[in-house]
Amino acid sequence: MSLSSSLLEHAVDQLATLPGIGRRTAMRLALDLLRREPQEVARFSEAIRRMREEVRHCEVCCNISDEPRCSICRDPHRDGGLICVVEDIRDVIAIENTRQFRGLYHVLGGVINPMEGVGPDDLNTHELMERVRPSEDAANGTPVREVLLALGGTLEGDTTGFYLNRRLMEAGVLVTTIARGISVGSDLDQADELTLGRSIADRKPYEQNLRR
Amino acid sequence: MSLSSSLLEHAVDQLATLPGIGRRTAMRLALDLLRREPQEVARFSEAIRRMREEVRHCEVCCNISDEPRCSICRDPHRDGGLICVVEDIRDVIAIENTRQFRGLYHVLGGVINPMEGVGPDDLNTHELMERVRPSEDAANGTPVREVLLALGGTLEGDTTGFYLNRRLMEAGVLVTTIARGISVGSDLDQADELTLGRSIADRKPYEQNLRR
Repeated sequence: MSLSSSLLEHAVDQLATLPGIGRRTAMRLALDLLRREPQEVARFSEAIRRMREEVRHCEVCCNISDEPRCSICRDPHRDGGLICVVEDIRDVIAIENTRQFRGLYHVLGGVINPMEGVGPDDLNTHELMERVRPSEDAANGTPVREVLLALGGTLEGDTTGFYLNRRLMEAGVLVTTIARGISVGSDLDQADELTLGRSIADRKPYEQNLRR
Repeated sequence: MSLSSSLLEHAVDQLATLPGIGRRTAMRLALDLLRREPQEVARFSEAIRRMREEVRHCEVCCNISDEPRCSICRDPHRDGGLICVVEDIRDVIAIENTRQFRGLYHVLGGVINPMEGVGPDDLNTHELMERVRPSEDAANGTPVREVLLALGGTLEGDTTGFYLNRRLMEAGVLVTTIARGISVGSDLDQADELTLGRSIADRKPYEQNLRR
Protein backbone atom coordinates (compact mmCIF):
# COMPACT_ATOMS: atom_id res chain seq x y z
CA MET A 1 0.00 0.00 0.00
CA SER A 2 1.72 3.19 -1.12
CA LEU A 3 0.05 6.43 -0.21
CA SER A 4 0.26 9.86 -1.78
CA SER A 5 1.00 11.41 1.62
CA SER A 6 3.84 10.36 3.88
CA LEU A 7 2.10 12.12 6.80
CA LEU A 8 -0.91 9.84 6.36
CA GLU A 9 1.36 6.85 5.85
CA HIS A 10 3.16 7.58 9.09
CA ALA A 11 -0.10 7.94 11.04
CA VAL A 12 -1.39 4.67 9.57
CA ASP A 13 1.87 2.94 10.54
CA GLN A 14 1.47 4.17 14.11
CA LEU A 15 -2.21 3.20 14.39
CA ALA A 16 -1.35 -0.26 13.02
CA THR A 17 0.94 -0.85 16.03
CA LEU A 18 -2.16 -1.09 18.25
CA PRO A 19 -3.22 -4.65 19.20
CA GLY A 20 -5.84 -6.09 16.86
CA ILE A 21 -5.57 -3.19 14.41
CA GLY A 22 -4.33 -4.21 10.96
CA ARG A 23 -3.24 -1.79 8.24
CA ARG A 24 -6.67 -1.78 6.60
CA THR A 25 -8.41 -0.84 9.86
CA ALA A 26 -5.65 1.66 10.67
CA MET A 27 -6.35 3.33 7.33
CA ARG A 28 -10.06 3.56 8.14
CA LEU A 29 -9.26 5.13 11.53
CA ALA A 30 -6.80 7.61 9.97
CA LEU A 31 -9.34 8.68 7.35
CA ASP A 32 -11.93 9.17 10.07
CA LEU A 33 -9.50 11.38 12.01
CA LEU A 34 -8.69 13.30 8.82
CA ARG A 35 -12.36 14.22 8.41
CA ARG A 36 -12.50 15.83 11.88
CA GLU A 37 -11.68 19.35 12.97
CA PRO A 38 -7.95 19.88 13.67
CA GLN A 39 -8.65 20.99 17.27
CA GLU A 40 -10.62 17.81 17.87
CA VAL A 41 -7.73 15.66 16.62
CA ALA A 42 -5.30 17.70 18.73
CA ARG A 43 -7.39 16.89 21.81
CA PHE A 44 -7.44 13.21 20.81
CA SER A 45 -3.68 13.11 20.40
CA GLU A 46 -3.07 15.10 23.59
CA ALA A 47 -5.25 12.81 25.72
CA ILE A 48 -3.11 9.83 24.70
CA ARG A 49 0.22 11.59 25.23
CA ARG A 50 -0.80 12.97 28.63
CA MET A 51 -2.13 9.62 29.80
CA ARG A 52 1.22 7.95 29.17
CA GLU A 53 3.25 10.80 30.60
CA GLU A 54 1.24 11.63 33.69
CA VAL A 55 -0.44 8.42 34.82
CA ARG A 56 1.41 6.79 37.68
CA HIS A 57 0.99 3.65 39.72
CA CYS A 58 -0.58 3.78 43.16
CA GLU A 59 2.26 3.40 45.68
CA VAL A 60 0.14 1.00 47.72
CA CYS A 61 -1.70 -1.31 45.32
CA CYS A 62 0.08 -0.64 41.97
CA ASN A 63 -3.27 0.23 40.37
CA ILE A 64 -3.02 3.16 37.97
CA SER A 65 -3.75 6.51 39.50
CA ASP A 66 -3.49 10.26 38.92
CA GLU A 67 -2.15 10.75 42.45
CA PRO A 68 0.40 8.93 44.66
CA ARG A 69 -2.41 6.82 46.14
CA CYS A 70 -5.33 5.66 44.00
CA SER A 71 -8.93 6.60 44.80
CA ILE A 72 -9.70 3.07 46.06
CA CYS A 73 -6.78 3.03 48.53
CA ARG A 74 -7.76 6.54 49.73
CA ASP A 75 -11.40 5.52 50.36
CA PRO A 76 -11.86 5.30 54.19
CA HIS A 77 -14.97 3.09 53.78
CA ARG A 78 -12.95 0.27 52.25
CA ASP A 79 -11.89 -2.75 54.30
CA GLY A 80 -8.09 -2.55 54.48
CA GLY A 81 -7.90 -6.04 56.03
CA LEU A 82 -8.93 -7.74 52.78
CA ILE A 83 -6.78 -7.54 49.64
CA CYS A 84 -7.88 -8.87 46.26
CA VAL A 85 -4.94 -9.82 44.01
CA VAL A 86 -5.57 -9.37 40.27
CA GLU A 87 -3.52 -9.57 37.09
CA ASP A 88 -4.18 -6.10 35.68
CA ILE A 89 -6.37 -3.04 36.05
CA ARG A 90 -9.07 -4.44 33.75
CA ASP A 91 -9.78 -6.99 36.46
CA VAL A 92 -10.10 -4.18 39.03
CA ILE A 93 -12.71 -2.54 36.81
CA ALA A 94 -14.58 -5.82 36.27
CA ILE A 95 -14.72 -6.52 40.03
CA GLU A 96 -15.66 -2.93 40.88
CA ASN A 97 -18.56 -3.22 38.44
CA THR A 98 -20.00 -6.12 40.46
CA ARG A 99 -20.21 -3.86 43.59
CA GLN A 100 -19.65 -7.05 45.63
CA PHE A 101 -16.16 -6.29 46.90
CA ARG A 102 -15.37 -3.64 49.49
CA GLY A 103 -11.75 -4.48 50.24
CA LEU A 104 -8.60 -3.14 48.58
CA TYR A 105 -6.73 -4.46 45.54
CA HIS A 106 -3.25 -5.45 44.56
CA VAL A 107 -2.42 -5.31 40.85
CA LEU A 108 0.33 -7.79 39.91
CA GLY A 109 0.88 -6.35 36.44
CA GLY A 110 0.85 -9.81 34.82
CA VAL A 111 1.10 -13.49 35.73
CA ILE A 112 4.06 -15.84 36.05
CA ASN A 113 4.82 -17.16 32.58
CA PRO A 114 8.07 -19.13 32.27
CA MET A 115 7.59 -19.52 28.49
CA GLU A 116 7.73 -15.74 28.07
CA GLY A 117 10.37 -15.31 30.75
CA VAL A 118 8.05 -13.63 33.27
CA GLY A 119 9.04 -14.63 36.80
CA PRO A 120 7.72 -13.50 40.24
CA ASP A 121 10.28 -10.68 40.37
CA ASP A 122 8.88 -9.15 37.16
CA LEU A 123 5.52 -8.72 38.90
CA ASN A 124 4.50 -6.56 41.86
CA THR A 125 4.90 -9.50 44.28
CA HIS A 126 7.44 -7.71 46.48
CA GLU A 127 4.95 -4.88 47.10
CA LEU A 128 2.27 -7.45 47.99
CA MET A 129 4.51 -9.18 50.54
CA GLU A 130 5.32 -5.79 52.08
CA ARG A 131 1.61 -5.11 52.54
CA VAL A 132 0.89 -8.36 54.37
CA ARG A 133 4.03 -8.18 56.55
CA PRO A 134 2.95 -7.30 60.11
CA SER A 135 4.53 -3.92 60.86
CA GLU A 136 5.38 -2.66 64.32
CA ASP A 137 4.76 1.01 63.60
CA ALA A 138 1.21 0.26 62.36
CA ALA A 139 1.42 3.24 60.05
CA ASN A 140 -0.39 1.27 57.38
CA GLY A 141 -3.61 1.14 59.38
CA THR A 142 -5.58 -2.14 59.38
CA PRO A 143 -3.44 -5.29 59.35
CA VAL A 144 -4.20 -7.64 56.42
CA ARG A 145 -6.13 -10.75 57.52
CA GLU A 146 -7.17 -12.18 54.12
CA VAL A 147 -5.78 -12.17 50.58
CA LEU A 148 -8.27 -13.15 47.87
CA LEU A 149 -6.60 -14.45 44.71
CA ALA A 150 -8.72 -13.46 41.68
CA LEU A 151 -6.52 -14.71 38.85
CA GLY A 152 -7.54 -16.03 35.44
CA GLY A 153 -8.27 -19.73 35.09
CA THR A 154 -5.29 -20.35 32.83
CA LEU A 155 -2.18 -22.43 33.45
CA GLU A 156 -0.25 -19.19 34.13
CA GLY A 157 -2.95 -17.94 36.49
CA ASP A 158 -2.88 -21.24 38.38
CA THR A 159 0.94 -21.17 38.57
CA THR A 160 0.86 -17.63 39.94
CA GLY A 161 -1.81 -18.57 42.47
CA PHE A 162 0.22 -21.58 43.59
CA TYR A 163 3.33 -19.45 44.10
CA LEU A 164 1.53 -16.63 45.92
CA ASN A 165 -0.41 -19.03 48.15
CA ARG A 166 2.85 -20.57 49.38
CA ARG A 167 4.48 -17.24 50.12
CA LEU A 168 1.38 -15.74 51.75
CA MET A 169 0.85 -18.79 53.95
CA GLU A 170 4.42 -18.35 55.21
CA ALA A 171 3.47 -14.79 56.11
CA GLY A 172 0.58 -16.19 58.16
CA VAL A 173 -2.31 -14.66 56.23
CA LEU A 174 -5.53 -16.41 55.15
CA VAL A 175 -5.46 -17.05 51.39
CA THR A 176 -8.74 -17.53 49.50
CA THR A 177 -9.56 -17.80 45.80
CA ILE A 178 -12.63 -16.91 43.76
CA ALA A 179 -15.09 -19.76 43.09
CA ARG A 180 -14.94 -21.52 39.71
CA GLY A 181 -18.16 -22.97 38.41
CA ILE A 182 -21.03 -22.73 35.97
CA SER A 183 -21.91 -19.15 35.03
CA VAL A 184 -25.12 -17.83 36.56
CA GLY A 185 -27.96 -18.33 34.07
CA SER A 186 -26.07 -20.61 31.70
CA ASP A 187 -26.88 -24.18 30.64
CA LEU A 188 -24.78 -27.12 31.77
CA ASP A 189 -24.25 -28.41 28.24
CA GLN A 190 -22.70 -25.07 27.24
CA ALA A 191 -19.97 -25.28 29.88
CA ASP A 192 -16.57 -26.81 29.16
CA GLU A 193 -15.73 -30.10 30.86
CA LEU A 194 -13.06 -28.69 33.17
CA THR A 195 -15.40 -26.05 34.59
CA LEU A 196 -18.28 -28.50 34.93
CA GLY A 197 -15.99 -31.04 36.62
CA ARG A 198 -14.71 -28.41 39.03
CA SER A 199 -18.24 -27.24 39.84
CA ILE A 200 -19.10 -30.82 40.86
CA ALA A 201 -15.94 -31.31 42.91
CA ASP A 202 -16.57 -27.97 44.65
CA ARG A 203 -20.27 -28.69 45.33
CA LYS A 204 -21.74 -27.24 48.50
CA PRO A 205 -24.88 -27.64 50.69
CA TYR A 206 -28.01 -26.43 48.94
CA GLU A 207 -29.05 -24.55 52.08
CA GLN A 208 -25.94 -22.39 51.81
CA ASN A 209 -27.06 -21.17 48.38
CA LEU A 210 -30.54 -20.32 49.62
CA ARG A 211 -29.18 -18.15 52.39
CA ARG A 212 -27.87 -15.54 49.91
CA MET B 1 -17.07 1.70 34.02
CA SER B 2 -15.41 3.96 36.56
CA LEU B 3 -11.63 4.15 36.50
CA SER B 4 -9.15 5.04 39.19
CA SER B 5 -7.45 7.50 36.83
CA SER B 6 -9.20 10.35 35.03
CA LEU B 7 -6.24 10.58 32.62
CA LEU B 8 -6.84 7.00 31.52
CA GLU B 9 -10.58 7.58 31.44
CA HIS B 10 -10.11 10.57 29.15
CA ALA B 11 -7.82 8.62 26.79
CA VAL B 12 -10.31 5.74 26.68
CA ASP B 13 -13.12 8.19 25.90
CA GLN B 14 -11.11 9.60 23.00
CA LEU B 15 -10.12 6.19 21.60
CA ALA B 16 -13.76 5.10 21.79
CA THR B 17 -14.70 7.91 19.35
CA LEU B 18 -12.94 5.95 16.58
CA PRO B 19 -15.26 4.04 14.23
CA GLY B 20 -15.76 0.42 15.24
CA ILE B 21 -13.96 0.88 18.57
CA GLY B 22 -16.18 0.31 21.62
CA ARG B 23 -15.21 1.20 25.19
CA ARG B 24 -13.94 -2.29 25.92
CA THR B 25 -11.60 -2.25 22.92
CA ALA B 26 -10.61 1.36 23.68
CA MET B 27 -9.57 0.20 27.15
CA ARG B 28 -7.44 -2.57 25.66
CA LEU B 29 -5.74 -0.07 23.33
CA ALA B 30 -5.14 2.41 26.16
CA LEU B 31 -3.59 -0.27 28.37
CA ASP B 32 -1.34 -1.31 25.50
CA LEU B 33 -0.19 2.30 25.07
CA LEU B 34 0.35 2.59 28.83
CA ARG B 35 2.78 -0.32 28.71
CA ARG B 36 4.98 1.41 26.11
CA GLU B 37 7.84 3.86 26.56
CA PRO B 38 6.66 7.49 26.95
CA GLN B 39 8.74 8.59 23.92
CA GLU B 40 7.09 5.92 21.79
CA VAL B 41 3.62 7.10 22.80
CA ALA B 42 4.66 10.71 22.16
CA ARG B 43 5.64 9.70 18.60
CA PHE B 44 2.32 7.89 18.20
CA SER B 45 0.35 10.91 19.36
CA GLU B 46 2.44 13.34 17.31
CA ALA B 47 2.01 11.35 14.07
CA ILE B 48 -1.77 11.66 14.40
CA ARG B 49 -1.74 15.35 15.27
CA ARG B 50 0.67 16.24 12.45
CA MET B 51 -1.30 14.24 9.91
CA ARG B 52 -4.46 16.22 10.62
CA GLU B 53 -2.69 19.57 10.78
CA GLU B 54 -0.35 19.29 7.83
CA VAL B 55 -2.02 17.02 5.28
CA ARG B 56 -3.62 18.99 2.48
CA HIS B 57 -5.64 18.14 -0.60
CA CYS B 58 -4.00 18.07 -4.03
CA GLU B 59 -5.11 21.24 -5.84
CA VAL B 60 -5.69 19.22 -9.02
CA CYS B 61 -7.32 15.92 -8.05
CA CYS B 62 -8.35 16.51 -4.39
CA ASN B 63 -6.39 13.42 -3.33
CA ILE B 64 -4.56 13.89 -0.06
CA SER B 65 -1.01 15.11 -0.37
CA ASP B 66 1.92 16.58 1.54
CA GLU B 67 2.51 19.15 -1.23
CA PRO B 68 0.23 21.42 -3.31
CA ARG B 69 0.11 18.72 -6.02
CA CYS B 70 0.05 15.04 -5.11
CA SER B 71 2.72 12.59 -6.26
CA ILE B 72 0.38 11.03 -8.84
CA CYS B 73 -0.48 14.37 -10.49
CA ARG B 74 3.22 15.31 -10.51
CA ASP B 75 4.25 12.05 -12.24
CA PRO B 76 5.15 12.90 -15.89
CA HIS B 77 4.66 9.28 -16.99
CA ARG B 78 0.97 9.36 -16.17
CA ASP B 79 -1.67 9.83 -18.90
CA GLY B 80 -3.25 13.22 -18.19
CA GLY B 81 -5.96 12.58 -20.81
CA LEU B 82 -7.66 9.90 -18.69
CA ILE B 83 -9.22 10.71 -15.34
CA CYS B 84 -10.60 8.08 -12.98
CA VAL B 85 -13.31 9.44 -10.66
CA VAL B 86 -13.49 7.77 -7.22
CA GLU B 87 -15.33 8.31 -3.97
CA ASP B 88 -12.40 8.56 -1.57
CA ILE B 89 -8.69 7.97 -1.26
CA ARG B 90 -9.10 4.34 -0.24
CA ASP B 91 -10.33 3.72 -3.81
CA VAL B 92 -7.21 5.42 -5.17
CA ILE B 93 -5.07 3.05 -3.12
CA ALA B 94 -7.10 0.01 -4.22
CA ILE B 95 -6.78 0.94 -7.92
CA GLU B 96 -3.08 1.81 -7.59
CA ASN B 97 -2.50 -1.63 -6.10
CA THR B 98 -3.83 -3.26 -9.31
CA ARG B 99 -1.09 -1.48 -11.35
CA GLN B 100 -3.59 -1.49 -14.25
CA PHE B 101 -4.32 2.22 -14.38
CA ARG B 102 -1.84 4.82 -15.62
CA GLY B 103 -4.12 7.85 -15.83
CA LEU B 104 -4.85 10.48 -13.15
CA TYR B 105 -7.54 10.50 -10.48
CA HIS B 106 -10.27 12.74 -9.21
CA VAL B 107 -11.39 12.21 -5.62
CA LEU B 108 -15.02 13.27 -5.06
CA GLY B 109 -14.84 13.07 -1.28
CA GLY B 110 -18.14 11.16 -1.09
CA VAL B 111 -21.19 10.30 -3.18
CA ILE B 112 -24.52 12.04 -3.70
CA ASN B 113 -26.82 10.97 -0.86
CA PRO B 114 -30.10 12.90 -0.62
CA MET B 115 -31.07 11.01 2.55
CA GLU B 116 -28.02 12.42 4.35
CA GLY B 117 -28.27 15.79 2.62
CA VAL B 118 -25.16 15.33 0.45
CA GLY B 119 -25.66 17.03 -2.91
CA PRO B 120 -23.29 17.54 -5.89
CA ASP B 121 -22.07 20.86 -4.45
CA ASP B 122 -20.86 19.11 -1.29
CA LEU B 123 -18.50 17.00 -3.41
CA ASN B 124 -15.51 18.00 -5.52
CA THR B 125 -17.62 18.06 -8.69
CA HIS B 126 -16.82 21.70 -9.52
CA GLU B 127 -13.09 20.88 -9.57
CA LEU B 128 -13.80 17.91 -11.87
CA MET B 129 -15.74 20.06 -14.36
CA GLU B 130 -12.89 22.60 -14.34
CA ARG B 131 -10.45 19.86 -15.27
CA VAL B 132 -12.45 18.62 -18.27
CA ARG B 133 -13.29 22.14 -19.55
CA PRO B 134 -11.18 22.79 -22.69
CA SER B 135 -8.87 25.67 -21.79
CA GLU B 136 -7.46 28.12 -24.31
CA ASP B 137 -4.18 28.72 -22.49
CA ALA B 138 -3.46 24.96 -22.39
CA ALA B 139 -1.51 25.49 -19.18
CA ASN B 140 -2.94 22.26 -17.80
CA GLY B 141 -1.09 20.16 -20.36
CA THR B 142 -2.96 17.22 -21.95
CA PRO B 143 -6.67 17.84 -22.60
CA VAL B 144 -8.95 15.28 -20.97
CA ARG B 145 -10.45 12.80 -23.49
CA GLU B 146 -11.95 10.20 -21.14
CA VAL B 147 -13.40 10.13 -17.65
CA LEU B 148 -13.68 6.66 -16.07
CA LEU B 149 -16.29 6.49 -13.31
CA ALA B 150 -15.14 4.01 -10.65
CA LEU B 151 -17.89 4.42 -8.07
CA GLY B 152 -19.31 1.85 -5.67
CA GLY B 153 -22.21 -0.33 -6.85
CA THR B 154 -24.67 1.20 -4.38
CA LEU B 155 -27.75 3.30 -5.05
CA GLU B 156 -25.77 6.41 -4.09
CA GLY B 157 -22.88 5.42 -6.34
CA ASP B 158 -25.28 4.89 -9.24
CA THR B 159 -26.99 8.24 -8.58
CA THR B 160 -23.64 10.00 -8.55
CA GLY B 161 -22.58 8.24 -11.76
CA PHE B 162 -25.83 9.22 -13.45
CA TYR B 163 -25.39 12.88 -12.49
CA LEU B 164 -21.71 13.05 -13.47
CA ASN B 165 -22.33 11.26 -16.78
CA ARG B 166 -24.90 13.88 -17.77
CA ARG B 167 -22.68 16.82 -16.87
CA LEU B 168 -19.56 15.33 -18.45
CA MET B 169 -21.40 14.47 -21.68
CA GLU B 170 -22.42 18.13 -21.91
CA ALA B 171 -18.73 19.00 -21.62
CA GLY B 172 -18.06 16.73 -24.62
CA VAL B 173 -15.88 14.13 -22.90
CA LEU B 174 -16.06 10.34 -23.26
CA VAL B 175 -17.52 8.83 -20.06
CA THR B 176 -16.80 5.19 -19.22
CA THR B 177 -17.49 3.08 -16.16
CA ILE B 178 -15.75 0.07 -14.62
CA ALA B 179 -17.16 -3.35 -15.57
CA ARG B 180 -19.48 -5.07 -13.12
CA GLY B 181 -19.53 -8.84 -13.17
CA ILE B 182 -18.51 -12.07 -11.50
CA SER B 183 -15.26 -11.80 -9.53
CA VAL B 184 -12.27 -13.52 -11.09
CA GLY B 185 -11.94 -17.02 -9.62
CA SER B 186 -15.35 -17.11 -7.94
CA ASP B 187 -18.25 -19.51 -8.49
CA LEU B 188 -21.50 -18.43 -10.18
CA ASP B 189 -23.65 -19.74 -7.35
CA GLN B 190 -21.79 -17.52 -4.88
CA ALA B 191 -22.65 -14.31 -6.77
CA ASP B 192 -25.69 -12.23 -5.90
CA GLU B 193 -28.50 -12.13 -8.48
CA LEU B 194 -28.00 -8.49 -9.47
CA THR B 195 -24.33 -9.00 -10.28
CA LEU B 196 -24.97 -12.27 -12.12
CA GLY B 197 -27.81 -10.65 -14.09
CA ARG B 198 -25.61 -7.71 -15.01
CA SER B 199 -22.74 -9.99 -16.06
CA ILE B 200 -25.12 -11.73 -18.51
CA ALA B 201 -26.56 -8.47 -19.88
CA ASP B 202 -23.01 -7.14 -20.33
CA ARG B 203 -21.71 -10.33 -22.02
CA LYS B 204 -19.03 -9.93 -24.67
CA PRO B 205 -17.40 -11.98 -27.43
CA TYR B 206 -15.29 -14.83 -26.09
CA GLU B 207 -12.47 -13.89 -28.46
CA GLN B 208 -12.18 -10.53 -26.75
CA ASN B 209 -11.44 -12.26 -23.44
CA LEU B 210 -8.77 -14.47 -24.98
CA ARG B 211 -6.88 -11.50 -26.38
CA ARG B 212 -5.92 -10.30 -22.89
